Amino acid sequence: MNSATTKSGPAKASRPIGVFDSGIGGLTVVSALRTLLPNESISYIGDTARIPYGSRSEATVQRYSLEIAAMLLEDQAKTVVVACNTASAVALSQLEKSLPVTVTGVILPGARAAIAKTRTGNVGVIGTRATIKSGAYERALRSLNPDVRVTARACPLLVPLIEEGWLENAIADEIIMQYLAPLVDEGIDTLVLGCTHYPLLRKAIARLLGDGVALVDSAENCANAVRELLVRENLCAPETNGGTLQVALTDPPDNFLRVAREALQLEVGEVQLRYVAAHAL
Amino acid sequence: MNSATTKSGPAKASRPIGVFDSGIGGLTVVSALRTLLPNESISYIGDTARIPYGSRSEATVQRYSLEIAAMLLEDQAKTVVVACNTASAVALSQLEKSLPVTVTGVILPGARAAIAKTRTGNVGVIGTRATIKSGAYERALRSLNPDVRVTARACPLLVPLIEEGWLENAIADEIIMQYLAPLVDEGIDTLVLGCTHYPLLRKAIARLLGDGVALVDSAENCANAVRELLVRENLCAPETNGGTLQVALTDPPDNFLRVAREALQLEVGEVQLRYVAAHAL
Repeated sequence: MNSATTKSGPAKASRPIGVFDSGIGGLTVVSALRTLLPNESISYIGDTARIPYGSRSEATVQRYSLEIAAMLLEDQAKTVVVACNTASAVALSQLEKSLPVTVTGVILPGARAAIAKTRTGNVGVIGTRATIKSGAYERALRSLNPDVRVTARACPLLVPLIEEGWLENAIADEIIMQYLAPLVDEGIDTLVLGCTHYPLLRKAIARLLGDGVALVDSAENCANAVRELLVRENLCAPETNGGTLQVALTDPPDNFLRVAREALQLEVGEVQLRYVAAHAL
Repeated sequence: MNSATTKSGPAKASRPIGVFDSGIGGLTVVSALRTLLPNESISYIGDTARIPYGSRSEATVQRYSLEIAAMLLEDQAKTVVVACNTASAVALSQLEKSLPVTVTGVILPGARAAIAKTRTGNVGVIGTRATIKSGAYERALRSLNPDVRVTARACPLLVPLIEEGWLENAIADEIIMQYLAPLVDEGIDTLVLGCTHYPLLRKAIARLLGDGVALVDSAENCANAVRELLVRENLCAPETNGGTLQVALTDPPDNFLRVAREALQLEVGEVQLRYVAAHAL
């Protein structure tokens, strides 16, 4: 593999993996990628100036996703990972059409993990309004197993609850149960945490649902899908690469970055501030 | 007053009042303006594609406010009303410096109403993170009465709670009391609802706090301030004007618009969709 730098930048395999999310929840995917692919450099952009995507229209989420992906291409990203359930749910096919590199979302890897875990075929999915409204998880789950039974529910208060840091208190428990009780009544045995924020509530959700319900988040499975893709396309970084991580946000970080950093044990380093470029695609 | 149309648009007095908010909460101010100034036309923009402002940095809120204000100037606004507590708290002086028309925020009118209502001089203020962090209400209250005692608290879960439509349930009550208990302990006799969403929780807050605490929202007082300004500047619309209301959003409206419409009994008509123009000031 040739890692010499040319006018168009370093050889493709040595270029970074571009990862984006509406905020910093996508660092769960970065964490999984770092563990699985330590030689890979990663350029991460969290669009904190326009978070949350989950309550916006499809057209706006598509426009925002294209704008952020364009910034990752400026960073010479060799492939783009959509570490955001909402953007994966409503903008993936548009990104695939528009970008000159491969694109991996979190929906299909999450669905695969759920199908692997469920014993009864009765799966629950929680996510933002936009993710649930899109029906993307249902489609992905049914494409893997047409007989699966899916109960989906939008939980718009969970993200602000997590960002307030109320992860383990009585109010958190009540809000979680208000949303999950109908899924429990449906008898689900597997629950997809269909938003990159939700793993931070994993402990509370697991305690409230008990051992009878397996929890699935897509971070690890998404990282596996990216590894398969890089191998297939002969794009794995050379072992001499020494993977680096560059994190940029579109609005200065607040307290939640510290919370996530500690929860993920991720060495984030200096965070860049980058304004969103005009829509260039 | 000359209402003839010139190349630069209609005579200034006949032009609309421009009103903006990060979303549609600012329609509470529009409602008060319609009642008080029925001859005035209003152009309203809610920046729903980038709501909420309250959790963003000052620099980003200032940039967004300037961009939306520029769109109101395109509508020939004769004056601009910042019907958003966060933007009023962190972007008002920059708007005043940058815009060629007068600007009215909601903070000073709200502070005036609180000073008029309090008997003990012990005032509470609730708002978004950005509003409370700015200290704008404390400064406004102290400029009116240096002896006032102010207890302020950011309540970031209230806006998503309202947008979820959970206005009167046990979870809403618990979240409200979690935030307000320290203010009650301080012995406040007046509470400023320092966010245009909060009047939709007014009933629950009033019930929980009881008769001993007066609630203040700035909508009506802001409308009064606008009337005084128009009279002072000789900019009142002629009686023949027949005030109209034009509402535009930067992202298509969701269910919350219907909720607000009904709660405010406001005839909103057809809602326009307008993309945010590039920063032009």
